[in-house]
Amino acid sequence: MKTALSALGRRTAPPPISWLMKTALARPKLISLAAGFTDNATLPVATSRRLLDQILRSPKTGQPALQYGTTAGEETLRQLTATHLKKLDGGHDRAHSPERVIITGGSQQLLYMTLEALCDEGDIVLVEDPTYFVFLSILQSRGLRARGVRLERDGLDLAHLEKVLTQLQKSGDIRRLKALYLVTYFQNPTGVTTTSAKKRAALVLLKKIERAAGHPIYLLEDAAYRELRFDHGADVPTALTLPGARDRVIYAGTYSKPFATGVRVGFGILPEPLFTSVLRIKGNHDFGTANLLQHLLARALADGTYDQQVAKARRNYARKARVMKVALAKYFPANVEIWEAGGGLYFWARLPKKISAGVDSKIFQTALKHDVLYVPGELCYADDSARRKPANEMRLSFGNASEAHIREGIRRLGAVLRKFV
Amino acid sequence: MKTALSALGRRTAPPPISWLMKTALARPKLISLAAGFTDNATLPVATSRRLLDQILRSPKTGQPALQYGTTAGEETLRQLTATHLKKLDGGHDRAHSPERVIITGGSQQLLYMTLEALCDEGDIVLVEDPTYFVFLSILQSRGLRARGVRLERDGLDLAHLEKVLTQLQKSGDIRRLKALYLVTYFQNPTGVTTTSAKKRAALVLLKKIERAAGHPIYLLEDAAYRELRFDHGADVPTALTLPGARDRVIYAGTYSKPFATGVRVGFGILPEPLFTSVLRIKGNHDFGTANLLQHLLARALADGTYDQQVAKARRNYARKARVMKVALAKYFPANVEIWEAGGGLYFWARLPKKISAGVDSKIFQTALKHDVLYVPGELCYADDSARRKPANEMRLSFGNASEAHIREGIRRLGAVLRKFV
Repeated sequence: MKTALSALGRRTAPPPISWLMKTALARPKLISLAAGFTDNATLPVATSRRLLDQILRSPKTGQPALQYGTTAGEETLRQLTATHLKKLDGGHDRAHSPERVIITGGSQQLLYMTLEALCDEGDIVLVEDPTYFVFLSILQSRGLRARGVRLERDGLDLAHLEKVLTQLQKSGDIRRLKALYLVTYFQNPTGVTTTSAKKRAALVLLKKIERAAGHPIYLLEDAAYRELRFDHGADVPTALTLPGARDRVIYAGTYSKPFATGVRVGFGILPEPLFTSVLRIKGNHDFGTANLLQHLLARALADGTYDQQVAKARRNYARKARVMKVALAKYFPANVEIWEAGGGLYFWARLPKKISAGVDSKIFQTALKHDVLYVPGELCYADDSARRKPANEMRLSFGNASEAHIREGIRRLGAVLRKFV
Repeated sequence: MKTALSALGRRTAPPPISWLMKTALARPKLISLAAGFTDNATLPVATSRRLLDQILRSPKTGQPALQYGTTAGEETLRQLTATHLKKLDGGHDRAHSPERVIITGGSQQLLYMTLEALCDEGDIVLVEDPTYFVFLSILQSRGLRARGVRLERDGLDLAHLEKVLTQLQKSGDIRRLKALYLVTYFQNPTGVTTTSAKKRAALVLLKKIERAAGHPIYLLEDAAYRELRFDHGADVPTALTLPGARDRVIYAGTYSKPFATGVRVGFGILPEPLFTSVLRIKGNHDFGTANLLQHLLARALADGTYDQQVAKARRNYARKARVMKVALAKYFPANVEIWEAGGGLYFWARLPKKISAGVDSKIFQTALKHDVLYVPGELCYADDSARRKPANEMRLSFGNASEAHIREGIRRLGAVLRKFV
């Protein structure tokens, strides 16, 4: 008898990271520089306790927080989200109105629903080379095609974007192109932040090709790490501030990473007709994110606790990033190129081109034997027949490991690299 | 220029209930007997406050509760869920092991992901006539076909099920049939509970037709209202206890309705290969339900608070159902048939056959003018060309309205009915 599973059900592959997680669990002494977890020590335990107590002590908020809300999200939180974003964007409010905000179960759910609303099987999404691997898992599961666009230290390689668009136009595949997905701040996995100029240029290029496509092409901006900046540089405005953004930019944000990953509250800002479509889809997924979590975030945003928590997290990640930087300088061979992050949770290391750090490589296996784990960069590249996946890269996370573990993990990894590089 | 939306994005209709909600909001004096909200007064406000305080006060649980968990759910909660279900099922443990449990964002998310894993566009799902309307919205959105099976006071009309299966076999459509969806306890919208004998017989009929289908056909049991029993009858065991269930029964349960709807935690128990497929899909949706909520439920289950809360909710709904019953006897015309619920949140009222209580009917519109709202029964029927949708029914909820409002709402509604029936 055949399976009853749908094409999607049969197609959906196990996430590569689940294998890494299992590996980590099986070796209790392992130092993991792989997980994208945030730092345990800075989680707002006391703060959340106090805020939840306030919410549940008050007759005005106690019952509503434990009752169903609406599908789009708690009104106060939608408003605070719009205000918060407007403030981050230096007062811009081109596309920052609360009616365009939808509250979701982490920004991950927003990414999923956006692809549901936008893409049919076989449609194409442009992604950075490399990019966030769970986004690639969604594409794989839903039978979508990815095309990789090269990433430079300051964002997308615009010449390559133009080239890819031209190729798609020539092949006729442009009619299947729906969106360009960018992780614009302290990107997962490379730590790269895209400049405002590059976002603007990308939006112009997409707009230009729309006539050939026959439909709008969206810029999907994933700003998950935006608030985890610690390099004292100025915040880059979102693509929402750019001309034409109101109709073409989808913004995915989250409170989970900056506040607490156990409180899964993300949000999207979407243009029509996507907003309505995603809202309806959300009605079918869960008709609204847990109200209690939304009340918690709304209160944290309103009373300044959220900002305090973000400031604390930034200081902490700055310190841990510094520890990793010093350790890398000390223990890694000089011919390994390090992309130092000014925020977020990750450093990116590039070995000489011909040396593999992939899952099956000697380096990865030896590192495991020495109880240290990283994310092989190759897992972050889309399946794209137009190029081979580079295997010489590694994502190194300083998010969850302690300072001592960061030092020791990099020391062990450096020793392995010195053998093979 | 065409829209860029996917077929799913274009197809997904607004939920009928959102229109009802908007109507309710626009009339502040409206008495709503429409909402499926639980009772505000019995929400576990003090309990949740105490449990969250305990969780966040302890160094052992504070940080883990605010950190990412795993995609399948918090281990303790998965175990407690298996134990809880086993207890409800009188010690049966045929299919009640923790490894088969997945924790989800309400049971709604489990229903959605199950249909993703199981059904391609055009596939068929059998549903009760009438059934839970958000389930119908998922089918509509995903391009699935529904066939209605008549419902009797003790569950599915088995003769009709057999007839529908025979028709599908004759037409060849049986190859597209994937599942039978049953809301087995105090059904939404009718309040009907399916007997164990009927579940067993349905499972046998599905098994018999599998050879013709060429693949497994699943019984998807939605037990959302199971714990809200107040008629002192014995609990009916789930389909999980039946022969063959381990491979063919998908169980959707929830803690939201019995505990707190603002804490969206549901769960599924699934056979392979569905379990693995749904788990992977969940990885793409959100890679895990908010850990804080899972910790809250786990603690409530472990220390007996959950059971106390359920007992309290039951007493409360018993009282409110009695108020509605008395009011219905007093105010409704004698030729309106009432299906009295022994649990859950709903009574079901059937007017004489030719009288419409649908959205466009005089009854519905007049009721609105008199500031009382119900859910027209027609919204709970699948699109199925094999029969016309009955329009003479109403779902009356005693869940959220106060006792005074239940009395007054039924009085007003009764006055309207006396004019038209």
